[in-house]
Amino acid sequence: MARRPITTHRSGCPINISLEVLGDRWSLLIVRDLMVRGFQTFRDFEHAGERIATNILSDRLRRLSLAGIVTAERDAADARQKRYRLTEKGIDLAPALLELMIWGAKHEKTGAPATAIARIARSRAAVLNETRRRWKDRDPRPLLPWLGGPRSSRGR
Amino acid sequence: MARRPITTHRSGCPINISLEVLGDRWSLLIVRDLMVRGFQTFRDFEHAGERIATNILSDRLRRLSLAGIVTAERDAADARQKRYRLTEKGIDLAPALLELMIWGAKHEKTGAPATAIARIARSRAAVLNETRRRWKDRDPRPLLPWLGGPRSSRGR
Repeated sequence: MARRPITTHRSGCPINISLEVLGDRWSLLIVRDLMVRGFQTFRDFEHAGERIATNILSDRLRRLSLAGIVTAERDAADARQKRYRLTEKGIDLAPALLELMIWGAKHEKTGAPATAIARIARSRAAVLNETRRRWKDRDPRPLLPWLGGPRSSRGR
Repeated sequence: MARRPITTHRSGCPINISLEVLGDRWSLLIVRDLMVRGFQTFRDFEHAGERIATNILSDRLRRLSLAGIVTAERDAADARQKRYRLTEKGIDLAPALLELMIWGAKHEKTGAPATAIARIARSRAAVLNETRRRWKDRDPRPLLPWLGGPRSSRGR
């Protein structure tokens, strides 16, 4: 895969560099969809609840690939179809996403069931282990079903 | 403090709402500066390593205040000077920032000393406890000295 040449960061602080690499919130939403919703295709991401614009989605998938967070594989059954998958670097974002989820559910009015969030906050390690297991085993069942699953009807 | 009326979010997902509330990366860098660097004043933030533009800094401080993440207090010694401080909601971002720091230090070339990051990754709970203690006690000593402390020379 083509890799972007090392760019100049505004500082050497790892928090800053993480945020620069991730870019804006759309990238993290795509990572979320891959991680806990079982989304794999452009069409899946396009129909996520936030209604990302097609041109932004294309750009963010390209950036995530260049950053080594996402890879694309040709579908075995349909070579025109790309299936996206998190890399090891991508799945390593699980703890940060989990903490953003717990923070949002605690401090903002969200659609997340309070009991589900409380259970997740009590068992962070178990949730992260299961997230990683599903990624490793290519288990496409949505980890957080209340977030919604993929809409594309193709078997997987 | 004036609060922004509840806005419409693109979805009820708590990760999406967290990212919408936080906005772009500049907001999280200001939270970082308050949390682990002992920064308190406009001048402190302005001179952080990322060289944030003055107009962006003003705007992000305003948004963080409206979101209830930051409060501003008048300096006891100089009423023209505002001192910023994280709220409870703001300090609750510590776990998410910590995970972003560990992720960046693991997967990107950063200026963070590898031994310091390894120690932090091994003792997340202790680091978070100390972060919260310093916030509660208004202890301004930088938690991560290798990130740099405030440059303003005024005593605190």
